[in-house]
Amino acid sequence: MLSVSSVRFSGNARGAIHHTKFRLFSTSIPAARRAIIFTSNGPASQSVRVISCPDLGKPARGHVNIRYLLSPINPSDINVIEGVYPAKPTPRTNLTARGPGSKEEPCFVVGNEGLAEVTETGEGVSTLVPGDRVVMVKPQAGTWSTNESVLENEIIKIPSSGGKTISDVQGATMTVNPPTAFNMLNQFVKLQPGEWVIQNGANSAVGQAVIQIAHERGLKTINFVRNRPDFSSLEDQLKGLGATCVLPLESLSDRSLRARIKDLTHNANIRLALNCVSGPTTAGLVGLLGRDAHLVSYGAMSKQPMSIPTGAFIFKGLTAHGFMQNIWYQRNGLERRQELMQELVGLMVTGKLKEPIHSILTISESLNDDKATSLIRDVLHELTEGDGRVGMKMLLKFS
Amino acid sequence: MLSVSSVRFSGNARGAIHHTKFRLFSTSIPAARRAIIFTSNGPASQSVRVISCPDLGKPARGHVNIRYLLSPINPSDINVIEGVYPAKPTPRTNLTARGPGSKEEPCFVVGNEGLAEVTETGEGVSTLVPGDRVVMVKPQAGTWSTNESVLENEIIKIPSSGGKTISDVQGATMTVNPPTAFNMLNQFVKLQPGEWVIQNGANSAVGQAVIQIAHERGLKTINFVRNRPDFSSLEDQLKGLGATCVLPLESLSDRSLRARIKDLTHNANIRLALNCVSGPTTAGLVGLLGRDAHLVSYGAMSKQPMSIPTGAFIFKGLTAHGFMQNIWYQRNGLERRQELMQELVGLMVTGKLKEPIHSILTISESLNDDKATSLIRDVLHELTEGDGRVGMKMLLKFS
Repeated sequence: MLSVSSVRFSGNARGAIHHTKFRLFSTSIPAARRAIIFTSNGPASQSVRVISCPDLGKPARGHVNIRYLLSPINPSDINVIEGVYPAKPTPRTNLTARGPGSKEEPCFVVGNEGLAEVTETGEGVSTLVPGDRVVMVKPQAGTWSTNESVLENEIIKIPSSGGKTISDVQGATMTVNPPTAFNMLNQFVKLQPGEWVIQNGANSAVGQAVIQIAHERGLKTINFVRNRPDFSSLEDQLKGLGATCVLPLESLSDRSLRARIKDLTHNANIRLALNCVSGPTTAGLVGLLGRDAHLVSYGAMSKQPMSIPTGAFIFKGLTAHGFMQNIWYQRNGLERRQELMQELVGLMVTGKLKEPIHSILTISESLNDDKATSLIRDVLHELTEGDGRVGMKMLLKFS
Repeated sequence: MLSVSSVRFSGNARGAIHHTKFRLFSTSIPAARRAIIFTSNGPASQSVRVISCPDLGKPARGHVNIRYLLSPINPSDINVIEGVYPAKPTPRTNLTARGPGSKEEPCFVVGNEGLAEVTETGEGVSTLVPGDRVVMVKPQAGTWSTNESVLENEIIKIPSSGGKTISDVQGATMTVNPPTAFNMLNQFVKLQPGEWVIQNGANSAVGQAVIQIAHERGLKTINFVRNRPDFSSLEDQLKGLGATCVLPLESLSDRSLRARIKDLTHNANIRLALNCVSGPTTAGLVGLLGRDAHLVSYGAMSKQPMSIPTGAFIFKGLTAHGFMQNIWYQRNGLERRQELMQELVGLMVTGKLKEPIHSILTISESLNDDKATSLIRDVLHELTEGDGRVGMKMLLKFS
């Protein structure tokens, strides 16, 4: 019997996952290269499996071999597996000689985001050297794996700031959530210090980044999170990040809320709302907005359509937008991407943008593929079938 | 007994109003000045009444006396009476010495839009002379009346174009619907000739103007109207205005529609949708849009909130706006207003923008106030309690 350390959780979260659940047995000899894959779309907890593959060879010309250090499980990764996300990974036919990942049975390697380290560079590679810490430029690169050979321009080196570097968790989660928060706060309306921002899903990783970046800019935030037994503990946590006010999402259907918010904000004209919930409570969120405001949506955790009174658009000049960081990357060049990274790293190394609340699942090389598959399926089951209040970012690490 | 001509309907519409219904009796002596007013909000058909008032005196310094020639009954007028519209007319306390319109019982004169003729100008008035045909600059001026004394800058002279002038119906309906159509087609996305526009409520006065202005610009239109027994007759009518395609609104919930539209448009990326219906069919309308499209709403005839899948915003780059011509007027100066009028008059005198389908209700001076009140209440009842398929613009004329 393996010790629990072969299925190790670590992190800064206050134990919402039951660690002992994942004690598993293993006797097989591990392979040097492993990946979490799926061959057809379906429920995440039934579709993924872990495979072992032959080692990567030397990097080809223009290529770089990388080793993934840490990769988050983002909600969009689950949507990709389910087939309900517009982006799809490239099918892989050269991971194995037979079985999944071969020409006979192409597969997809899961994972859009992750931190990696350069292990070897091919001929003609000029901007990277072994040891460089990088993140992915190519979307859906397959970060839920141990290592990979990629083109030089499919990855980008993480800058330092004032001689300081960011943590592994910050690096692994820096390409989607923090830039989403940063851009949503900047791209749609030019807010002045002292102005208010309202958001739902405020305890999501994006929500936490919004609170911190807004706070740093002198903006005040009203943050809605679903009610829960330990609400005041979550409230304290978000206020610790700089939240001005934390309220239950359910209060959005309370008619007295508007008066309360007018009082709190001294009748401010609130011009920006960020939405990752949608459904009927969106109308309540919009009801708190003032003239010529912007509603920016980046998720729909309620799995219901957005429902908004038309009068908000006609009479109050509301504009509703969506935001998706991958589309931003497609439309903005490498230079703007580097500027954005530098800005975010600057916030991180000065403690203004902290690691998200997280837990790291370590998949030990001592677990065989079947056991590792059971493990990742159990975790995905917990993430997808629960009520979504796990409230932390889960990350994967192969060891 | 009065002949039916004292309650006269005329117009270019194909008789959806039953004229004989309004044969009425009258024996009183008419007053020189009359107005349709309300003293408190409520259902339009129960709240308005016609009052007679003493003549206007000579215009004061800077003032202009005008005689209203023709004033439309717009849906927003009904909403103003109901108290569900953000704008409100100024209370009147000097129409009469006692009763409604006096200091003791202030009233509101209904009517935002209308065509008037200058009858007399006060000292210091420099831009207008008697006989000039004008429309209102001041919103909610109270156009459902016979005459009024206004400040010079509360009205604006209708220009001619190439020596030609527009008709009374065109003048009376030119400040709200045609500019709404014109601005919605221009303000949100720069469409190139050959591109497509989709709209619901296509038989509304705005919808008819959209069809014609789009046609003039070389844009193609897909027009949704509620199904009805004489659908093909309405289809012919709208195609006569330049509509490319007319479809039942109900088909928006039909899953085969997208394939049909892709076929019709040769897979065009449709970038503009205009909405005055809202409710659940909005999702179907949005489903026909391509990447980076704009949904512009100017009404909600379904009286239901707008319901849109959040993914349209996030993944397809949809932006949703509202449009209200009165807000446009507030934010754009007199010069831009004059340019816009000139542009619209140019389209009208060349036959590119026709009179809306309409019917004129003439309120004869031979009807006393009670009878005139019954008449206007009956018409408002028909407009508000029917199924909204009257399908024509109603206008009021005092004689």
